Amino acid sequence: MKHSTIAAISTPLGPGGIGIIRISGPEAKDILKRVFIRAEKGSSFHRGESNPFRSHRVYYGKIIDPHKGRLIDEALAIYMKAPKSFTREDVVELQSHSGFVVLDRILNAVIDSGALIAEPGEFTKRAFMNGRIDLSQAEAVIDMINAPCEAAVYMASQQMMGILKESVDEIRSKMISLRAQLEVELEFSDQNETQMGKDALLESIQHEILQKIARLVQNQKEAAIYRDGVLLSIAGLPNVGKSSLLNQLVQKETAIVSEVPGTTRDIVREYLTIRGVPIVLCDTAGLHDSLDPIECLGVQKARKQIQESDNILFVIDASRDLLEEEKVLIESLKTKRTLFLINKIDIADKNRVKKLEGMIQQKWVLPISAKTGKGIDQLKELLLKGIVESDAIKQMDAGIPNLRQRQLLDKAYKQISQCVQDVSKEYTLDRASEKLNDAIDTLGSVCGTREREDLYDTIFSQFCIGK
Amino acid sequence: MKHSTIAAISTPLGPGGIGIIRISGPEAKDILKRVFIRAEKGSSFHRGESNPFRSHRVYYGKIIDPHKGRLIDEALAIYMKAPKSFTREDVVELQSHSGFVVLDRILNAVIDSGALIAEPGEFTKRAFMNGRIDLSQAEAVIDMINAPCEAAVYMASQQMMGILKESVDEIRSKMISLRAQLEVELEFSDQNETQMGKDALLESIQHEILQKIARLVQNQKEAAIYRDGVLLSIAGLPNVGKSSLLNQLVQKETAIVSEVPGTTRDIVREYLTIRGVPIVLCDTAGLHDSLDPIECLGVQKARKQIQESDNILFVIDASRDLLEEEKVLIESLKTKRTLFLINKIDIADKNRVKKLEGMIQQKWVLPISAKTGKGIDQLKELLLKGIVESDAIKQMDAGIPNLRQRQLLDKAYKQISQCVQDVSKEYTLDRASEKLNDAIDTLGSVCGTREREDLYDTIFSQFCIGK
Repeated sequence: MKHSTIAAISTPLGPGGIGIIRISGPEAKDILKRVFIRAEKGSSFHRGESNPFRSHRVYYGKIIDPHKGRLIDEALAIYMKAPKSFTREDVVELQSHSGFVVLDRILNAVIDSGALIAEPGEFTKRAFMNGRIDLSQAEAVIDMINAPCEAAVYMASQQMMGILKESVDEIRSKMISLRAQLEVELEFSDQNETQMGKDALLESIQHEILQKIARLVQNQKEAAIYRDGVLLSIAGLPNVGKSSLLNQLVQKETAIVSEVPGTTRDIVREYLTIRGVPIVLCDTAGLHDSLDPIECLGVQKARKQIQESDNILFVIDASRDLLEEEKVLIESLKTKRTLFLINKIDIADKNRVKKLEGMIQQKWVLPISAKTGKGIDQLKELLLKGIVESDAIKQMDAGIPNLRQRQLLDKAYKQISQCVQDVSKEYTLDRASEKLNDAIDTLGSVCGTREREDLYDTIFSQFCIGK
Repeated sequence: MKHSTIAAISTPLGPGGIGIIRISGPEAKDILKRVFIRAEKGSSFHRGESNPFRSHRVYYGKIIDPHKGRLIDEALAIYMKAPKSFTREDVVELQSHSGFVVLDRILNAVIDSGALIAEPGEFTKRAFMNGRIDLSQAEAVIDMINAPCEAAVYMASQQMMGILKESVDEIRSKMISLRAQLEVELEFSDQNETQMGKDALLESIQHEILQKIARLVQNQKEAAIYRDGVLLSIAGLPNVGKSSLLNQLVQKETAIVSEVPGTTRDIVREYLTIRGVPIVLCDTAGLHDSLDPIECLGVQKARKQIQESDNILFVIDASRDLLEEEKVLIESLKTKRTLFLINKIDIADKNRVKKLEGMIQQKWVLPISAKTGKGIDQLKELLLKGIVESDAIKQMDAGIPNLRQRQLLDKAYKQISQCVQDVSKEYTLDRASEKLNDAIDTLGSVCGTREREDLYDTIFSQFCIGK
């Protein structure tokens, strides 16, 4: 793998000012010479053979099709000599205009000149394989790219700098030295004078290892909402004001992502952040509005949507009495994390609003007007209260594992706990030591020092092409 | 305007390996120092104040939020000192990971450090205002980004290199010298000995000016299909095989653009190229499949679609007789550029196929099987024959104007023709000379030497932000 030269479009595909083709591998510089003609002083152009490309310099010139000799685009070219590059290999970046066809043409010229098309994530994989970054740092790249909010960007940047690895390495080193002590303790456990030492040792494992691992696991739990966002569905019968509510929530707070085509998938979604917490808002509006023949299907979809949501906003129209259908729905939603919104209080009878609050009999009931915006701020407060208990981000200096890493930390925690029990009950040295060894291995996997090639493939295939 | 410093995300928005924030203006370097911390040898980082950033070098480091001091992302930074940059101003490029939020965070850090958000096209506008490129080259950037096929990329690259400007400048210079000669001729037109010279002069205007302008106008006409693509609608009643036909056409020829989310807009479209000619294929399938209540609307939409198409593929099911509705449609389509496809010949009775061919009585009738692919190659041949008469690209060394430029060339052509007539009819010198002056001005506008600021705004506002 190391000896091949790979290339890909590394910027997102679409029309835009700048697009980048990245090339990595031993042939990168030769390929550059084949497809790129440098502009020299004045405005004459010539091929790069005569004047060497120097590392980490920016050159202006033209990209040509090496077979047809035809000009493709003007471009900037950067050559980064190994090991001072993203992959620690020779890397070339070609900056052209970003259009579907022009980038495709340039990529083809590069492939024709000897590069292979990169697999998704292959650049980052090479950076990892060549030792520039560890696995947790590689995974941070995915988190950075997909970060839905400022907090997630911050967490990814911390991980990218290797903070989790530092924490885990520290725990692991401590374990290795404790294992040595443990072995000494157990060896001489029949001699009374060391007995005190053994208790201190177990205490040490508890405080310096288990608690620290637990803290990292806790960090993952608290950070998950920042990384993935909170799924929040708006539900209710037709014409209760679901769309107005969506607009009220989104218009003031919408993050940049909602304006970009391609971020919404199969169902209608809006993205917003409320004080840094990313919310994925799913509107089920219109599902009940359908005509008879597809009504059943619509209701099915709405129910599925509700089932999959962490949180539900159920909207009720206060300008009329509750319908039978609504009462059934309200009852079924009481077992889920649901905030009941009594809407249209700007036009509703006050007594009916009170009556509705009484009928629902839930902690989370809020009268609002989606139209005037009344109650929307309280709604946000309630949402945050229900979703985030504390300001989690501040306490995460030790690093924030992702789900894969957390599962390994959970596993290590169990292995060590078992070891502690074994030692307390004075089982044999062999068994306790084996458990500890397993745990040390497990911790090693968190940042990738002991993972297997097939696992790498799984991780790196999550990347987009060109990264 | 020149004294402000602008910034924007210059790569397309979306998740990806690399995203670029571009900064241009006198403050660019200072902003770089505020948001970027360079990695020095070893792995220590420090601010850029002590070590100057050198032009056209690539630096690795970290981007930080200047207010909170928080790390945002690792990045490469490039500083390009004026005038050796895209805008001829000081330019800084920050290459980070491409994610919605991370790029938004970095852009905010740059704005907080003193930059203004760039208007769409403002970078290119500055390049033009500062004299690095002319207007035709600036417009070539839009064409390059939106190029739907290889030929369009090639045409844009030629224009970017200033080929059109060369042609137009040459014509314009010739006009200026002819004007001088003309004035001499007219001054002495009452003396017989110059009469021959006047005819030669008119001949010269005809050959060296009018014909060359006409050639450029012709180039624009021929190139338009490469630049914009050909709109081709597939129409027909339900279940005649429209979708199968779409699949047959697309599966073998689909260009990269069809796989990218965001390229399809309101209606179902597929992009393909047939021998370099970009085709935008619109499927009207399903419009007739609707249930009764919306049938009317569906038919309306289909009719509108057909009206807007340059070319129509009308599909008929040869496995059954023509329906009344079909006969009406066929009759109405005879006035449009329609290719009638008699489909399902793999299962149809041969006599019926012949009968259908006879009934339609049109030049463009082709029996096919969308299922087996029979006749598809002939279909493509027919399409090309109907769309492109000749291999237009080869003959366009003089440059290819866009629509705006062509309109100016048309105008200049008329002005000069009028002048020629005036001179032939021996109107006064003043009037002929005035016409010629107008034409010289008009030609000057083609590449932007005499345009007005408000026109520039119109042109540059077509650009995306960051270009």
